[in-house]
Amino acid sequence: MPLNKPHDQLANIFIDDMEAVNKLIKQRMASKAAPRIPEVTAHLIDAGGKRLRPMLTLAAAKMCGNKTPYHIHLAATVEFIHTATLLHDDVVDESQHRRGRPTANLLWDNQSSVLVGDYLFSRSFQLMVETGNLRVLDILANASATIAEGEVLQLTVAQNLNTSEDTYLKVVRGKTAALFGAACKVGGVISSADEKIIDALAAYGDALGISFQITDDLLDYAGESSDLGKSVGDDFRERKMSLPLIKVLTQADQKEKDFWIRTIEKGEQQDGDLDYALELMIKHDALEATRRDALYWANKAKQAMNTLPESEIRNTLMDLPDYVVRRIT
Amino acid sequence: MPLNKPHDQLANIFIDDMEAVNKLIKQRMASKAAPRIPEVTAHLIDAGGKRLRPMLTLAAAKMCGNKTPYHIHLAATVEFIHTATLLHDDVVDESQHRRGRPTANLLWDNQSSVLVGDYLFSRSFQLMVETGNLRVLDILANASATIAEGEVLQLTVAQNLNTSEDTYLKVVRGKTAALFGAACKVGGVISSADEKIIDALAAYGDALGISFQITDDLLDYAGESSDLGKSVGDDFRERKMSLPLIKVLTQADQKEKDFWIRTIEKGEQQDGDLDYALELMIKHDALEATRRDALYWANKAKQAMNTLPESEIRNTLMDLPDYVVRRIT
Repeated sequence: MPLNKPHDQLANIFIDDMEAVNKLIKQRMASKAAPRIPEVTAHLIDAGGKRLRPMLTLAAAKMCGNKTPYHIHLAATVEFIHTATLLHDDVVDESQHRRGRPTANLLWDNQSSVLVGDYLFSRSFQLMVETGNLRVLDILANASATIAEGEVLQLTVAQNLNTSEDTYLKVVRGKTAALFGAACKVGGVISSADEKIIDALAAYGDALGISFQITDDLLDYAGESSDLGKSVGDDFRERKMSLPLIKVLTQADQKEKDFWIRTIEKGEQQDGDLDYALELMIKHDALEATRRDALYWANKAKQAMNTLPESEIRNTLMDLPDYVVRRIT
Repeated sequence: MPLNKPHDQLANIFIDDMEAVNKLIKQRMASKAAPRIPEVTAHLIDAGGKRLRPMLTLAAAKMCGNKTPYHIHLAATVEFIHTATLLHDDVVDESQHRRGRPTANLLWDNQSSVLVGDYLFSRSFQLMVETGNLRVLDILANASATIAEGEVLQLTVAQNLNTSEDTYLKVVRGKTAALFGAACKVGGVISSADEKIIDALAAYGDALGISFQITDDLLDYAGESSDLGKSVGDDFRERKMSLPLIKVLTQADQKEKDFWIRTIEKGEQQDGDLDYALELMIKHDALEATRRDALYWANKAKQAMNTLPESEIRNTLMDLPDYVVRRIT
């Protein structure tokens, strides 16, 4: 296990580039005509967030030799897409908090969140067009479609106890992995890297995103509230079809199935239900199986990155999957 | 005044192309993973609508010689962008009816409308990337940003009695004219037309869109309900800053201003208010001035189109602005 957070190491390596990215973001989120736009955007962007996605783009571009100045544009693009999806997600989930602040839909209204999200998505689109690279546009257009499709899919399988692991993976690719993968891939493409390198970068981002999401799912049942920034059992209370639940359902006998139908499908929850849910997940090895999956994807990410030539950045990216799963190992 | 609707003439000229466009739309709105997507999209797309925007793209491309097969892609792109904005608009406006049917947000939910809108926007983006034409991408990216900015602006000036005609125009460009202008312009660009022609096409679409919107605003106060597909006075009841209202406000004395503050700003409306509002608009020439503006923009559209070489399509496009304003002349 690395001593320093790989994320902080990346932030340190790319301190100048990230300053340029942040400057570009500030510039492009401006709107003289509609000041509501920078207000809403700044509320979310200034709240921090780890800026992991744009750093992945910068890291990938740098490892491949930074052949153009457009890695900055692409890093800002990726952050804009991410911010746009957060704004829409919070409307869809009726969320009240994000990054330790009240959500934009709470502070302003759903209307502002929907329309400012649309604006940021359009802005991201302008930024990527400026790179003049059609392949980059193709990758990001496909990622956008995968994201939106995954979000609709998540909506339609909510509380559906028959959700398969296959469907779960599609949702996770939409929620997280598609943009992680695209963020890495466009960094390689804009630097005219070899196809093998580009494929490895895409595979790394995809696997990293999946391990990230599965770890999140596991911690929601098996973690400590103080680590999470949210409460253990949130996914249970919100009746989300997360991976531990999907796994435990395949092992349920009729009595257990009735419990899941009542608590998840019908949403009739009472005191002690979360404890019993956890008990069933331990009994049926669902938490352990979820942990194994998270590690499988973290390992897959490392294997992909391992095919790239050694460098400080590559080594930091190799540490990142370990760091993601550190709280469950 | 033309005897036949120019819109029907266009539909007749482009019957084969529009079949290809509709086929492409059907193909691209599919989603095996998330059947909710084609359900919601079909609900809106099958309800008809005039398909004016894609026909403008086809007409512009054809007048410039259809140098590539991508006018079909671009026409579908434009319709997808339009459909995506309708889905989001209906969420923002909490609309209940669209094209004579209950809205998607009513039949399904706001979540589906937001996310399926995002999906269609991503799909439009994929379609335009497939044309491989960076200038087309630039035009449509800019139009998307103008649309979203105009929508946010409209939200923030709602019920603001100090809204200027300048701001009104920005909102209208966002709501209508930006996409009309882009739909025409990309038709020229994809056919490698001369810059003068491309500019004229863009100016035509922009002016047509503005006259379209101003006519709509006027009819909402001065039209017959049977013509409108909605009721006279809807904009008054919904307290929209439409052009007749903006114009009458500049002429209001203190007593009249108090009336507008009560009815529009505070939304305290009672029987007889709409009649009095109309009376004030007639007294201050606001309806006539709005009519003159609609005609000014319709005329501007015709002048722009008049610079193109004569042809059956050009003549039909020349008739279109007259047709748009026919109900107010």
